[in-house]
Amino acid sequence: MLLELKGEGRQPAGRQIVAQIQCLIQEGHLSPGECLPSTRRLGEQLGLHRSTIAGAYQELWALGWLELRPGALPRVRRRGALMTPTTPITGQFPWAERMVVPPAEPSPLPIPGAPGGPISFNALGMDPRLMPLEPLARSLKAVLRREGAQLLDYGDPQGLAAFRACLSHRMAQHGITATPEEILVTHGAQQALDLALAGLARPGDAILVESPTYNQMLKLLALRQVRPVPMPTGADGLDLQALEALIQKERPALLYTMPSFQNPTGRSLTQAQREGLLALCERYGLPILEDGFEEEMTYFGRPVLPLKSMDRSGLVLYSGTFSKVLFPGLRVGWLVGSRACVETLATVRRAVDLGTPPLLQAALEDFIRKGHFDQHLARLHRAFRRRMAACLAALRRELDPEQVCWEPPLGGYLVWLRVLGLPENLDLEEALRAHGVQVRSGSRFFIEPAKGGPYLRLSISNLDETEIVRGIARLGAGLRALKATHPPPR
Amino acid sequence: MLLELKGEGRQPAGRQIVAQIQCLIQEGHLSPGECLPSTRRLGEQLGLHRSTIAGAYQELWALGWLELRPGALPRVRRRGALMTPTTPITGQFPWAERMVVPPAEPSPLPIPGAPGGPISFNALGMDPRLMPLEPLARSLKAVLRREGAQLLDYGDPQGLAAFRACLSHRMAQHGITATPEEILVTHGAQQALDLALAGLARPGDAILVESPTYNQMLKLLALRQVRPVPMPTGADGLDLQALEALIQKERPALLYTMPSFQNPTGRSLTQAQREGLLALCERYGLPILEDGFEEEMTYFGRPVLPLKSMDRSGLVLYSGTFSKVLFPGLRVGWLVGSRACVETLATVRRAVDLGTPPLLQAALEDFIRKGHFDQHLARLHRAFRRRMAACLAALRRELDPEQVCWEPPLGGYLVWLRVLGLPENLDLEEALRAHGVQVRSGSRFFIEPAKGGPYLRLSISNLDETEIVRGIARLGAGLRALKATHPPPR
Repeated sequence: MLLELKGEGRQPAGRQIVAQIQCLIQEGHLSPGECLPSTRRLGEQLGLHRSTIAGAYQELWALGWLELRPGALPRVRRRGALMTPTTPITGQFPWAERMVVPPAEPSPLPIPGAPGGPISFNALGMDPRLMPLEPLARSLKAVLRREGAQLLDYGDPQGLAAFRACLSHRMAQHGITATPEEILVTHGAQQALDLALAGLARPGDAILVESPTYNQMLKLLALRQVRPVPMPTGADGLDLQALEALIQKERPALLYTMPSFQNPTGRSLTQAQREGLLALCERYGLPILEDGFEEEMTYFGRPVLPLKSMDRSGLVLYSGTFSKVLFPGLRVGWLVGSRACVETLATVRRAVDLGTPPLLQAALEDFIRKGHFDQHLARLHRAFRRRMAACLAALRRELDPEQVCWEPPLGGYLVWLRVLGLPENLDLEEALRAHGVQVRSGSRFFIEPAKGGPYLRLSISNLDETEIVRGIARLGAGLRALKATHPPPR
Repeated sequence: MLLELKGEGRQPAGRQIVAQIQCLIQEGHLSPGECLPSTRRLGEQLGLHRSTIAGAYQELWALGWLELRPGALPRVRRRGALMTPTTPITGQFPWAERMVVPPAEPSPLPIPGAPGGPISFNALGMDPRLMPLEPLARSLKAVLRREGAQLLDYGDPQGLAAFRACLSHRMAQHGITATPEEILVTHGAQQALDLALAGLARPGDAILVESPTYNQMLKLLALRQVRPVPMPTGADGLDLQALEALIQKERPALLYTMPSFQNPTGRSLTQAQREGLLALCERYGLPILEDGFEEEMTYFGRPVLPLKSMDRSGLVLYSGTFSKVLFPGLRVGWLVGSRACVETLATVRRAVDLGTPPLLQAALEDFIRKGHFDQHLARLHRAFRRRMAACLAALRRELDPEQVCWEPPLGGYLVWLRVLGLPENLDLEEALRAHGVQVRSGSRFFIEPAKGGPYLRLSISNLDETEIVRGIARLGAGLRALKATHPPPR
């Protein structure tokens, strides 16, 4: 065996021996089963102490190149083959049939309408053109300079204390009294929902939900094997009497509701409905998960306050988010609940992902404290008063009132259309795409197949007035064309 | 009822009517049950069209201040009370006994040893003093300037394509061939483990784990109601024969392992052990979840490559993280698996929290592409070659070899001590804190109570050489004192 050691300024002798023997094996000069010299003989040959050789052999053993047995010479080992770029893993994987996963989505996440291309009423977030980028960049820089490395270390899984204090202050503006100890920072509102389920519902439990409801909540429920039960609705919206009967029958673990600008219908519960719902849940000790995803988006009239603002018994777990009014991509949301509940959910949070990046929380706290959020919200409300007004005017102008009906919302981004006279199994998304407009079919949001005709959800969050008006003109043309090709049955 | 409208430049008349009536009710000038004038009468009184009054009444109804019934005068409603700062929610919450939560932790997250205070060997992350802050701040700024708002919008739940390409390149350096489509970006390694469980294990399933193992994994298993089964160990570490019998008996859904610098023992499997383990799992089609949390931390000798590097059948799901070598607080980790598996887990990721902030992924990609990570790793390895050498020398110097034994690790941050001759129920954490040194008791890491004497886990990740040497001197003094007060039974 030919080994050659290099002197001065090179790697230590042991490292050189390891590298050279590994090379001899890989290049086939030494074959599996072949013996290497004893540590004493190789040491003499190279003029090294035998312990240096023994160390190198030990490392080659750990790396799988040698077999070492007491009293025997070291032998070259047949080492397991590596995956190589020419042996990609096949598409199948052996445990596919065991996986518990949410149902697949017909199409990828919404993409804002490209200019000239189709106009999309799918995106539900914050219009990137209205994002206050510069102040955020300044806040990121300022907090990194001020607080440094501690913002890049693990943080409190419940959330940065200063940021929770800031959220407590903001919640007060919505009538919610919550100390920082009653707030848990989450990885967006979506994780808030998952944490609430992790804490409050077990596989097989029933949960009351509006139907239609937020489609990603339905996927989450499927993943966590929690059974959604639709809340009964009457002419006025909620049917509290039928709801009470259902609570007695199903013994649900939780009630999930979006009282303001509900997704997908855009509807809001009145104050009296909120009081009735809360009183009913109090009577049955039924916890409420209140999703305030668009709480900040009242721009027509005054906001009706969240259920949580009247929650004297600690029954309501409220989830909030910045995703619909600021930066969806920062993934920052929060839960408000009683202290004991929030502390328990913080231990769940710690077990699932250890917490939200302190850097992002500190930057948002700085951004809000300096008044940028309030300024931005005022601008956003002005923009959406105009945009929603343009949308509603275009709907009145472009749609056939005998074919389509809707309720004008009090704020938010959503309008829910009911289309009459078309076959229920018609794929409206597909049919309207041919007319250059993308909308969400209502069927995505129902637990059970939609009754009473096809629905469409329009979101105007990522469209300006011109795009909205053009999009609704296309929608009107598309629906009229569909009516012509699908005459009503007689 | 006295209402006074202000002219020019004030709020619209309808808004003023809403505000003033609300005020009259809140101040008690109008009481529940009292009637308000009809829309016609109030319109005449104020010189406004009755539709303006009707709109204001409608809004007051939605806000819960009025009852409206067809053919009757509007009546003041008894509105539900808000929570106030003087009515805090009590500590109890009604569904406490239903919650499925991980077991409580005896103490909060590790905090790096304050100067002068106790020296803590608990923190396992990245020493904030070694974090390359400046280049990260520059990368954040650069990507925000270059890509703007799209980094603050919702992103691909599987992860930013450019960042996955960068991870693919880094994985290749560890012998793992993975295209960007075979990589899923996660919210730290902790979420990678949770996603793997969500996809591969159901409540009630058994999962094979090393014992002792990562304590936050045990908490996660408790939360997801997956049953940990300890893998059998022999004199050499893994006992593959006993493991095979256990696989046949328990039919586990998954095997969870940390082959390099295992937490808490710091031990690494040899290449031959890795090959044996992989071959066994291949024989039984048993998926492996390989936790490479300290993959980058080989600084003595050469790294033994991960199991995933030999995975030709797509059985290994590999999880990686930057938390132990870069910025724990950015919460960025990843999973590598077959394409079909990763795409399925991406739908799970989307359901649980919609994805990792694109801004952080883009900044890390920029940071790595510009060479800062490689530079930093080289510096980190130099630092920890010195730190671990100082630690091992201090252990040899300060500890009584008849009382404490350990195996020197090949890298990483962990040393696992077995303490002989002390009572098994002795709270060593508590006892040693009195000597100014914080360590983790081994009992935290075992599924079943530790057998064969108390263990201690030392982590040196957040300590420099001086702190390590001082801390181990205190540890030695503490253990000697404990030996003196707990003489061996005769």
